[in-house]
Amino acid sequence: MIKEINEIRKALAPLKNLTAAEVTDEQAALLGEIARRARVDAVLMTSMASSGHPGGSLSSMDIYATILAVANLTPENCDALDRDRMVVSHGHTSPGVYASLVEWGFAKREKAVPNFRRAGSAFQGHVERVVPGVDWATGNLGQGLSAGVGFAIADKVCGRNSRIFVVMGDGEQPKGQIAEARRIASKEGLSGVTVLIDYNHIQISGKIEEIMPFDLTALWKADGWNVFECDGHDFKKLYAALKQATDSAKPSVILCHTIMGKGVSFMEGTPEYHGKVPSGDLLKQAITELGGDVSEIETLKLLRKGDPPKGRRVKCLAPSIDTGTPFIYTASDKKDNRGAFGAALGDVAEKNNGAPGRTPIVVFDCDLASSVKTDIFQKKVPSWFFQCGIQEHCVATMAGAASTAGVTAVWADFGVFGIDEAYNQQRLNDINHAQVKTVLTHVGLDVGEDGVTHQCIDYVGLLNNTFGYKVVVPADPNQTDRATRWMLSEPANVCLAVGRSIQPVLLKEDGSPFFDENYKFVYGEIDVIRKGGDAVILAMGHTAGLAVKAAEALAEKGISVQVLHSSSPLGIDGDKLISLIGGKPLVTVEDHNANTGLGAIAALHLARAGVGVKMKNLGVTRYGESGASKEVIKRMGFSAECIAEAVEYLL
Amino acid sequence: MIKEINEIRKALAPLKNLTAAEVTDEQAALLGEIARRARVDAVLMTSMASSGHPGGSLSSMDIYATILAVANLTPENCDALDRDRMVVSHGHTSPGVYASLVEWGFAKREKAVPNFRRAGSAFQGHVERVVPGVDWATGNLGQGLSAGVGFAIADKVCGRNSRIFVVMGDGEQPKGQIAEARRIASKEGLSGVTVLIDYNHIQISGKIEEIMPFDLTALWKADGWNVFECDGHDFKKLYAALKQATDSAKPSVILCHTIMGKGVSFMEGTPEYHGKVPSGDLLKQAITELGGDVSEIETLKLLRKGDPPKGRRVKCLAPSIDTGTPFIYTASDKKDNRGAFGAALGDVAEKNNGAPGRTPIVVFDCDLASSVKTDIFQKKVPSWFFQCGIQEHCVATMAGAASTAGVTAVWADFGVFGIDEAYNQQRLNDINHAQVKTVLTHVGLDVGEDGVTHQCIDYVGLLNNTFGYKVVVPADPNQTDRATRWMLSEPANVCLAVGRSIQPVLLKEDGSPFFDENYKFVYGEIDVIRKGGDAVILAMGHTAGLAVKAAEALAEKGISVQVLHSSSPLGIDGDKLISLIGGKPLVTVEDHNANTGLGAIAALHLARAGVGVKMKNLGVTRYGESGASKEVIKRMGFSAECIAEAVEYLL
Repeated sequence: MIKEINEIRKALAPLKNLTAAEVTDEQAALLGEIARRARVDAVLMTSMASSGHPGGSLSSMDIYATILAVANLTPENCDALDRDRMVVSHGHTSPGVYASLVEWGFAKREKAVPNFRRAGSAFQGHVERVVPGVDWATGNLGQGLSAGVGFAIADKVCGRNSRIFVVMGDGEQPKGQIAEARRIASKEGLSGVTVLIDYNHIQISGKIEEIMPFDLTALWKADGWNVFECDGHDFKKLYAALKQATDSAKPSVILCHTIMGKGVSFMEGTPEYHGKVPSGDLLKQAITELGGDVSEIETLKLLRKGDPPKGRRVKCLAPSIDTGTPFIYTASDKKDNRGAFGAALGDVAEKNNGAPGRTPIVVFDCDLASSVKTDIFQKKVPSWFFQCGIQEHCVATMAGAASTAGVTAVWADFGVFGIDEAYNQQRLNDINHAQVKTVLTHVGLDVGEDGVTHQCIDYVGLLNNTFGYKVVVPADPNQTDRATRWMLSEPANVCLAVGRSIQPVLLKEDGSPFFDENYKFVYGEIDVIRKGGDAVILAMGHTAGLAVKAAEALAEKGISVQVLHSSSPLGIDGDKLISLIGGKPLVTVEDHNANTGLGAIAALHLARAGVGVKMKNLGVTRYGESGASKEVIKRMGFSAECIAEAVEYLL
Repeated sequence: MIKEINEIRKALAPLKNLTAAEVTDEQAALLGEIARRARVDAVLMTSMASSGHPGGSLSSMDIYATILAVANLTPENCDALDRDRMVVSHGHTSPGVYASLVEWGFAKREKAVPNFRRAGSAFQGHVERVVPGVDWATGNLGQGLSAGVGFAIADKVCGRNSRIFVVMGDGEQPKGQIAEARRIASKEGLSGVTVLIDYNHIQISGKIEEIMPFDLTALWKADGWNVFECDGHDFKKLYAALKQATDSAKPSVILCHTIMGKGVSFMEGTPEYHGKVPSGDLLKQAITELGGDVSEIETLKLLRKGDPPKGRRVKCLAPSIDTGTPFIYTASDKKDNRGAFGAALGDVAEKNNGAPGRTPIVVFDCDLASSVKTDIFQKKVPSWFFQCGIQEHCVATMAGAASTAGVTAVWADFGVFGIDEAYNQQRLNDINHAQVKTVLTHVGLDVGEDGVTHQCIDYVGLLNNTFGYKVVVPADPNQTDRATRWMLSEPANVCLAVGRSIQPVLLKEDGSPFFDENYKFVYGEIDVIRKGGDAVILAMGHTAGLAVKAAEALAEKGISVQVLHSSSPLGIDGDKLISLIGGKPLVTVEDHNANTGLGAIAALHLARAGVGVKMKNLGVTRYGESGASKEVIKRMGFSAECIAEAVEYLL
């Protein structure tokens, strides 16, 4: 049998794109050889790190070998948009994935094997996008299929016929998010998606049938999927099942019957090897049984020194978007910020969708289009509007994944659903360098009558825990229009947060729109809405209008107040802020939890600079009530009157 | 037919507890009369508020009438632990719920009807526990069944044979959390749980079959439930279905075929009346068709003045727990904080479970018991240990609900699963005045080799957005032991956050344990670990040990540092903190996002007091790496050496 890897790859080339009718005996042997080599490496990796998950890596290995043999995915095309993709949902099988990628030339063995789970190394504990061939960082279980569905949606919109192979563990199957993804794949007819479940019947705590029973076949069938089964260690059968799956008009799942720890006698079928690493004589036995060379153990240890191999920089794709001509709202316009978002989105979408060279804009909805104002987009570009039902966890991940695959993905939802419910999915979008546009509407107490469960008073406080997400909270319809156009062309994860009520257009002292035709949205910029010398009000979002009212009332009493607005609380330049405050008494105001929003961020800037000023930070200080927004805000203590009182109190 | 409500209730008494064989014609007519009256009130409520959801309220109304007729749930027993419960998962049908509760005497009509969705009123937009008869605040869809399962688990543990009726909408059925709850109910054989789905085929955006198709029968059957169907407007059939359901050994779902907007001709089957309120002539027509009195419209409007009717105060149940005798760990002990938690939990559980008059302690696990150290509990009290599989969304809500029903509910999980993944469920636990004990293990970069997706660096920053949750981050195994014992007896939502690694026992300068046999955990207290006059280090959790090391190194250079530790960042007394800092240079250090943790909280206390000190806040400032904890922490810049350097920098 051929033993040289380039020769092996060449002999397996006829399997690419599933064009061969079947796997020959020789090809099956060669796939087995690839998997055997990768098994040796996976065990070596975990032993180098004294950490990691060998059991599932070994049981998934033949699946990885087969997918990488058939997928249109190579080291050369692994950034091309029309490639096939492999999403690994059970990201803890990273040794198996890295070892397989090494066999197919995506990574170098001498880098990967010794540097697994080493600080600073690309080869992290769970798969990350810094390794070529990895399309989505997972490890938090149950999310891989949502990512796969997101990629498939992008393929559909862009007219690509790529295949998405999603490999999942069996232990993760009960996660509800998986069922959500199944339904969306069915509804959209995403026949390019094929799921392979490593069905080894073992999870950390024991047999899956004892931990949490479920009927895998019934569940996938109930959601409209083809269900195939095969021996997950038989390459001929794996290939045949993949062929059968891709020939169907429906998405398919293949239950791959496997053995945990496959290939190492003392690991096979043993739950403790889910996350236990063999060492000493057991390690030698494992390597020997797999046909490896035990003398390598010491050689590889020596390589785990010096600089760890860095991962590649994950690039965001710069979208090509014509942002159009801003709409200018004047004093007489009655407009809510969500309406201004919806109008701008519709306008930009109309200009770009279908235009040559432009990035398609797609919109995801969770049964709230008419409230979140994406119904305007829906009417203009119905085929790129995806109605996903009430399934926010999947949609958050799906939109994130789609945003990395050549479309501008917009997901608009009520604040509590878009970020509170989907916080972890958004955190993983950030870790994944996605560039999703999450639009949160009805944020703050401005959700009004819907009451406490619907009050999203934490969107800044939540996303402040990420390191990449940009949050924008526009003050009025004009700024919303401009921020929306900017967002759609920004290669980053952006969260636009808008309330529910009609907002007065912010005006200059001469009565013309403050954010006029010369205004350009710049992320992080602080808007100086009114100048004044006695005190400073720093507002966020719609409270800017209340702040101006307060300043006007104070002016009548001879108190001159500077009114600042930050639409980008996470992007504020601290030095600029401190210089604008100029040591004067400061009132911060926001329709947001006062402990975690703009006021808290300003306080941290002040503290880091060692500056103390008289400060009062107004905002939400307890769960709010259910009633008219104005009334609820007044009772919470940040109406225009309350703001003016706070200034006077400090003076 | 009888028209007087007390007479009606009396005539329906034989239906209580489903003891009657069937509903008689007369009883059916009386149930119809109750539902008719409630329909009038529901429409009036939404018209008073010019807001709310009449469509689903009218379609669910006959279900509510039937449940309240049969359930062992009355205004008198609605706080008794052995009552039946009705959980309304589609909380936006609040007008239907409130109106039904009025009919059965739980609330007064003249309070409820005019004051719906009015700021300060108990009768909020979505059902809240401040109204007697409401057991769980919902409105964020898909969570009601999880709460019902939690109540049923508490019933099971306490040996109560209560029934849990969960009413759900059909639009919410795709939410993944529902499938999770179904599986747990099946596994635990919770035959007391009966779900009634208001199957009106309409959600906000249109027909459910168009929004997101699903096969309801197949889904519930796949997860092992009985599936019954009936006309949801036929009381005889509703009663018969309920009887059939409660006679089974399995949990049951009843698909109640209903008509959206039932009873009002122009609302029936019309999606827009999901959230649209009739007014003017249409309102009068609706009231007339329902047999109501249109002259009431004006009378009721007058009642919507003056003080709104306050809700009742939701009381947390004080648990009866013998917290036992603390374990004291000494300098030679090699213990991780999670191990100290597990040992204390096991010790307290052994003392209490089964002891007369004591509150049972139950533990929920998501396939991580051996890592989060609840395996000790599992061995000691196996029957009160619930293995729930990888289904965190359901478990968070379930544990929350159980905690309000007479058990001390502990859920331990990796930090990223317990709070990042389940943030919204925890937020709703807080709103629901639950008293769940969430134990987050492997928090911070101390998760080590598992890497970025597993780094819970935001638990303080997330829970700082709630107003009730108490977060405790103990410094060493001794404080963990004491905090665990305190937590188990504390009537509040508590989050205990511990890392992964073995932690040195914090010592006094004489070498004895700092948290010794005289130490009592007091929430909010700041621990003064070392005294010193040149600068202050304020640490959280395991970084206290690093801070002491730093102080020792600085002492050798003649720099005297005060080392403070806050285990309760959300409960800090700002004045006390500022006085302890005493205007000296301050270094904060935490294994947590530096923008949102202890440092940020300290900064806000300083800013609110107008105090500026030289400050450097160390912590996590970018996504961390995958490797040995110590190495990852060093690379992030908050090792003992880095702390000492920061102090010197400020001086």
